[in-house]
Amino acid sequence: MKLTIVGAGSSYTPEIIDGLLEERCFDPLEIVLYDLPEASERVDIICGLIRRMAEHKGVSVTVSQESRLQQALEGSSFVVSQFRVGLLEARIQDERIPLRYGLIGQETTGAGGFFKAMRTIPATLELTKEIERTCPEAWFINFTNPSGIITEAVHRYSKVKCVGLCNVPYNMNIDAAHLLQAEPDRVYCQMAGLNHLSFITEILLDGRPVLQEMIAGKMFKTQIVKNIPKVQGVETLIGQLGLVPSPYLQYYYFEKEMLAKELAEAAPDGPGTRGEQILKTQQLLFDIYKDPATCEKPKELEMRGGAYYSTVAVILMKALSGYGPVVMPVNYPNNGAIQGLSAASVVETNCLIDKNGVQPLSFGELPLSVGGLIQQVKNYENLTVEAAGEHSYRKAVLALLSHPLIHGYDNAVRLIEEMMTHFSAYVGELK
Amino acid sequence: MKLTIVGAGSSYTPEIIDGLLEERCFDPLEIVLYDLPEASERVDIICGLIRRMAEHKGVSVTVSQESRLQQALEGSSFVVSQFRVGLLEARIQDERIPLRYGLIGQETTGAGGFFKAMRTIPATLELTKEIERTCPEAWFINFTNPSGIITEAVHRYSKVKCVGLCNVPYNMNIDAAHLLQAEPDRVYCQMAGLNHLSFITEILLDGRPVLQEMIAGKMFKTQIVKNIPKVQGVETLIGQLGLVPSPYLQYYYFEKEMLAKELAEAAPDGPGTRGEQILKTQQLLFDIYKDPATCEKPKELEMRGGAYYSTVAVILMKALSGYGPVVMPVNYPNNGAIQGLSAASVVETNCLIDKNGVQPLSFGELPLSVGGLIQQVKNYENLTVEAAGEHSYRKAVLALLSHPLIHGYDNAVRLIEEMMTHFSAYVGELK
Amino acid sequence: MKLTIVGAGSSYTPEIIDGLLEERCFDPLEIVLYDLPEASERVDIICGLIRRMAEHKGVSVTVSQESRLQQALEGSSFVVSQFRVGLLEARIQDERIPLRYGLIGQETTGAGGFFKAMRTIPATLELTKEIERTCPEAWFINFTNPSGIITEAVHRYSKVKCVGLCNVPYNMNIDAAHLLQAEPDRVYCQMAGLNHLSFITEILLDGRPVLQEMIAGKMFKTQIVKNIPKVQGVETLIGQLGLVPSPYLQYYYFEKEMLAKELAEAAPDGPGTRGEQILKTQQLLFDIYKDPATCEKPKELEMRGGAYYSTVAVILMKALSGYGPVVMPVNYPNNGAIQGLSAASVVETNCLIDKNGVQPLSFGELPLSVGGLIQQVKNYENLTVEAAGEHSYRKAVLALLSHPLIHGYDNAVRLIEEMMTHFSAYVGELK
Amino acid sequence: MKLTIVGAGSSYTPEIIDGLLEERCFDPLEIVLYDLPEASERVDIICGLIRRMAEHKGVSVTVSQESRLQQALEGSSFVVSQFRVGLLEARIQDERIPLRYGLIGQETTGAGGFFKAMRTIPATLELTKEIERTCPEAWFINFTNPSGIITEAVHRYSKVKCVGLCNVPYNMNIDAAHLLQAEPDRVYCQMAGLNHLSFITEILLDGRPVLQEMIAGKMFKTQIVKNIPKVQGVETLIGQLGLVPSPYLQYYYFEKEMLAKELAEAAPDGPGTRGEQILKTQQLLFDIYKDPATCEKPKELEMRGGAYYSTVAVILMKALSGYGPVVMPVNYPNNGAIQGLSAASVVETNCLIDKNGVQPLSFGELPLSVGGLIQQVKNYENLTVEAAGEHSYRKAVLALLSHPLIHGYDNAVRLIEEMMTHFSAYVGELK
Repeated sequence: MKLTIVGAGSSYTPEIIDGLLEERCFDPLEIVLYDLPEASERVDIICGLIRRMAEHKGVSVTVSQESRLQQALEGSSFVVSQFRVGLLEARIQDERIPLRYGLIGQETTGAGGFFKAMRTIPATLELTKEIERTCPEAWFINFTNPSGIITEAVHRYSKVKCVGLCNVPYNMNIDAAHLLQAEPDRVYCQMAGLNHLSFITEILLDGRPVLQEMIAGKMFKTQIVKNIPKVQGVETLIGQLGLVPSPYLQYYYFEKEMLAKELAEAAPDGPGTRGEQILKTQQLLFDIYKDPATCEKPKELEMRGGAYYSTVAVILMKALSGYGPVVMPVNYPNNGAIQGLSAASVVETNCLIDKNGVQPLSFGELPLSVGGLIQQVKNYENLTVEAAGEHSYRKAVLALLSHPLIHGYDNAVRLIEEMMTHFSAYVGELK
Repeated sequence: MKLTIVGAGSSYTPEIIDGLLEERCFDPLEIVLYDLPEASERVDIICGLIRRMAEHKGVSVTVSQESRLQQALEGSSFVVSQFRVGLLEARIQDERIPLRYGLIGQETTGAGGFFKAMRTIPATLELTKEIERTCPEAWFINFTNPSGIITEAVHRYSKVKCVGLCNVPYNMNIDAAHLLQAEPDRVYCQMAGLNHLSFITEILLDGRPVLQEMIAGKMFKTQIVKNIPKVQGVETLIGQLGLVPSPYLQYYYFEKEMLAKELAEAAPDGPGTRGEQILKTQQLLFDIYKDPATCEKPKELEMRGGAYYSTVAVILMKALSGYGPVVMPVNYPNNGAIQGLSAASVVETNCLIDKNGVQPLSFGELPLSVGGLIQQVKNYENLTVEAAGEHSYRKAVLALLSHPLIHGYDNAVRLIEEMMTHFSAYVGELK
Repeated sequence: MKLTIVGAGSSYTPEIIDGLLEERCFDPLEIVLYDLPEASERVDIICGLIRRMAEHKGVSVTVSQESRLQQALEGSSFVVSQFRVGLLEARIQDERIPLRYGLIGQETTGAGGFFKAMRTIPATLELTKEIERTCPEAWFINFTNPSGIITEAVHRYSKVKCVGLCNVPYNMNIDAAHLLQAEPDRVYCQMAGLNHLSFITEILLDGRPVLQEMIAGKMFKTQIVKNIPKVQGVETLIGQLGLVPSPYLQYYYFEKEMLAKELAEAAPDGPGTRGEQILKTQQLLFDIYKDPATCEKPKELEMRGGAYYSTVAVILMKALSGYGPVVMPVNYPNNGAIQGLSAASVVETNCLIDKNGVQPLSFGELPLSVGGLIQQVKNYENLTVEAAGEHSYRKAVLALLSHPLIHGYDNAVRLIEEMMTHFSAYVGELK
Repeated sequence: MKLTIVGAGSSYTPEIIDGLLEERCFDPLEIVLYDLPEASERVDIICGLIRRMAEHKGVSVTVSQESRLQQALEGSSFVVSQFRVGLLEARIQDERIPLRYGLIGQETTGAGGFFKAMRTIPATLELTKEIERTCPEAWFINFTNPSGIITEAVHRYSKVKCVGLCNVPYNMNIDAAHLLQAEPDRVYCQMAGLNHLSFITEILLDGRPVLQEMIAGKMFKTQIVKNIPKVQGVETLIGQLGLVPSPYLQYYYFEKEMLAKELAEAAPDGPGTRGEQILKTQQLLFDIYKDPATCEKPKELEMRGGAYYSTVAVILMKALSGYGPVVMPVNYPNNGAIQGLSAASVVETNCLIDKNGVQPLSFGELPLSVGGLIQQVKNYENLTVEAAGEHSYRKAVLALLSHPLIHGYDNAVRLIEEMMTHFSAYVGELK
């Protein structure tokens, strides 16, 4: 198996590699670390660390660096994409620009996610064009956020086989198991929606539905998924919905509270935005990575918040490689699984994954209480993909106008101006 | 033809009657004015005025007052409902309560519309029960706002034949004709959406599509529909949408600007909310109505903003009575006309109306740019109808949570508290 | 108004003209008679007759002959197509070939209809190409059978505005009125399906549903629509369906009996197939047309079975010309009107027709008892259109395989062989 | 694990048990053999045989007989239903009655399948009522034919968890592997349709689509699934469809040829109908079962044609018991998996099966070439279920009228008369 990591200079890379080294089934394993030339120093550091990790574990693996895309892709079975257009500096802008307008500033949700999508889609489509030429049979595993939108763009504008991954649904499953004090494999969550906009509609314990019991038993007081801190009121909301929302839904249901938190963090006396905090962590991480004594994934990596990133990637790659079927929520074209969303729309829902590929399980109708929101955000996502794919200013406006967290036409217009001011190098010209 | 007006004490009543008196086809015409006993004084005044109006026009008509519902309905062909639960005083609360939370305060859109729906549905279902018993073949013509939601409730919980009317789509048509400097009957607007949430998707002049030309020719600088003052930026928005939104859409696309206007009006030095302004007008109107010299619809009535109310009611009643088919946007169950909304959902779209009833014209798919919003607000409407019909606190929360102008869970919970404080006499207990 | 009749040499032409001459609203009226050069003698006769008919009625009309297509179409508002590729001789083959295989031999239903569609689609698409060039705003009114399939082909492969007409639904309406002893305009039939495969699902008398009463009152003993003789058992069937099928449905529900009738007619001692009978009538008709004393539509024309052909054409043209809206069943793309059939599929159902064009009324779900048959035949129709449009042998086989009256693969293959033997000049080569 | 076999007197019983004994995962295993008292002799024989089989294999299993239903069901995890209402004698009538009308006489397809469904649904619903009372958590595994219709009836009229099984799709998969000379687990067939009316739409070999290559390579000359003998022409048909039909589709595509075969078998000098042949085999089988020397599943059992019956049952029960997920075509409510069929309709398509139950994989649109047939037969199935569930004569007529192999109203009426003559004891009265 040959695996190409695109954006290998990310501090996340050791996380994914660590999972692969644990699994002995990918043997012999060849890893190619691809990134832009300007990231070569970081890639160097990571390359060294991986070799030490492999040696430490006694695993034989070939690791190489490559800054020419075609060479990096040749013969690959899996291309894992985790690159960040504009680096953390751009993410910090994604967070700070919306805050100036009194809007949620977040990497994936709202205006920040829109900026990131508009920057990332052009680069991703360049990448998939090369995959089509060089390794058309490879699976493209997308981790780059906003994962659902990027996956939609790949399916819309290329023929590459693509799955969008996210660790949130997996975490939700783990948390549900935790609440039930049960081993995760006894617990199954029915789940539907979009990336960072999904809902657990039922929880099965040993095949028996228990969600309503869990609600009645006030089990949701405890936190579900940690990377978004829980807002007061969520447990009551869960009781009324009869569903468990992704923690990212807090941006919709508790916008005011989430905004207040963000503003406090971003204030001169605050700890900085999430991106700013990670920027600091990242420096620290690379110092640790560099240390020749480091030959395991450092504990500090967990601070980045990517719990189970590696786990979901490895589960997916094993299943696609033929090591037995698994069911897992991933981002993939709907094909009728969720009623009311178009067949081509990428959704996040449970899929069967095995060597034959990815097939969504039929889900049926969305609950009335959340279906409208999901449909509206899906329309935003589709318009964003079209805005980027067609370089259309008009569709960019319509996308933001369709987003529930943008609040109106004026904001839409101004945010696009900001985008063109800060990111036109990545977004390209809009007509 | 016998016509029963429910809520006949409204200052609108002479408007509707005036239209009927113009049409000679309803001859002999019998009008029953029904209202609660406490409105008898106003009904008296209106009854006198109508008789003078008829005499003045030389039309023979029987007008009577009746405060017993069954007697009022007996033998009716048409029941026109325009009653206002809690009177203008409640409307003023609908406007002022949301403003206290920094939210749009409006009779039909947002929290105010929700309060009004929750007050009106129980009373309407009492009324339709009596219609089922007394005059099951009668057409129930609903003018009471929010007209789409009330119509949905009637279709969901009764067998009464019901159409929801609104003058806005008719006005949009008239305005389009005005912009084209053409007679209205040369102009046809394709239209779809919900009441106060509809969009013109094409305009035909003598059968030829001209909307894109009108946009290119910057024709939409001029006002479309006057009862909601136009916000700056609407014409640019129309150009980008490629659609003409109902003026009520400004509450969604220009929330901040609309809120500022409302707050200015409601300020101590302002003219008062719309409801407060109408309260004053109403006093004035009844003084004029009372005057034995008044024997025509007074010009001052236009200040109430109900242009063409009478026109649409008369067109509808004539068509249902067999005077030739008409096509008009009304509120009626979708039955597949608009793809992506359920068959039972009441929508506002062009319908064929004739003696055989109301049949929506197939419309097809909603544009991507507005379909999500429409689906979300439809879900809000359905949840509101279920909250009222099932007296469910939980569904009331879910309804408000689904509304794009409520902004979060806390507001939803607090607004329902306010509702129960101010309107529990009408809303009843929620479980 | 300029009207071009394509296939003007048909003996039906005076029928359509007669209706137009009755209507004084098309004044001045210009009629162009277009046909292939080999039909010029018959066109001559018809041209003379029309002039005498107009003179006799005192109507001013310009009638001309034209065998050059472009010239015939220039400036036309309406193109009426009623041409018959291969003339009656081909129709007789359409009837006789299937009979040799023990299959229904009929002009529109089953193998005969398939042959006719495969012959007619190429010629029709040539015609619509010229319309696109010469008079793109003209309405194309298709009478040529199988009308639904031809209309589907035009909508699939051209941009011409096209309605498919048939007199059967109109006749069903008239017959329903007759059974109710009511004036036709008091009676409205809800109707859905495909051309020659439609069902009345409700009958309204003055707006009141009466179909179940009519069934209970055994009203359907009497004939509904005369051009297909009624088989014993139909009235019981109607009672069980709770629907009134088009008389052409007898070919499906009473195949054996209908086949026996056809075989008897086609036998050496029989009167000949329907086509053969018409061939004789036609001779007779032209003799009458030729007679300078003939200055009215001759009574003998009714023997051809086209009752109300003229009526429906005139109603349609008046409505499209802006003389008020009408509701009439025509063949037109579904656009969601009938649930379960694709948006692009041409169906036969009630449509609103006015100067703005044709808009199907939303119908909803097909009854379970007939929906499957309609879906299957629609698939046959779509495959036939694709077989002709793509010149595909494979799709021709799949089309016949999908037809309920072909009975198996061997018949499908052999019938296509027969088609290529007899009609390859019209069908073209299949790949 | 406790397993109840309903209809345990069937000669198939040792087949299913044999598979279970091979699997060591069901330990301790308790089997209850339930049948009507009149079958007790046969159950005795089978009970003895099973004990000898278990002993021979060295497996510990508890086997008991029980003719009281409630006792038989108590504590069961799985109820396998394979009972035959009216025994083989009724099956022989199912085959012979239609033949008298020149129609296919077959246990599951056409009139014979209809008779069997009408006899079996009432008894099955009695059984599921008892399951609801006694072991509501048990899985009901239906083998009784027509398996799709019976499964539909159980889902429509009870809350019992029910899967309909059939060995045909499994055999199709095995045959595809055979044609590819590959191990079955390398081969995956995409499949959709109804029981005995399904199509392979793609074949994946190691995840790579190969169906079109197989067709081009003329691989389908060889037989696919043996229990229906292959008709000449099938391979050409497969090439044109681009799909592999279930062998039962031959009754539709090659009706004449299949009918000829059946008539030859049923002729006085023929080997008898399939049911008659099995009747003879059965006698022989029970003689072998009785023999104390028999302690393995006898080879002669294969003559009954149930290849892999046991395999699919064991795979299903293992998966539902939590021994890892499997993907397998079973009969289960559609829930949106196949577009164009209702959510509640039972379909036969690939499902994910694990301890959480059965979830259809989203399939998307049916191919145009077969979708109409599937929709029509599904409507027949739904009408049959309603006819039996509502005891409706009218729906029985409409069901047969919707079936493509009944050929008309007269046959429908006469076949129902025959049914009431022969099977009214089981069918009950129809209103």
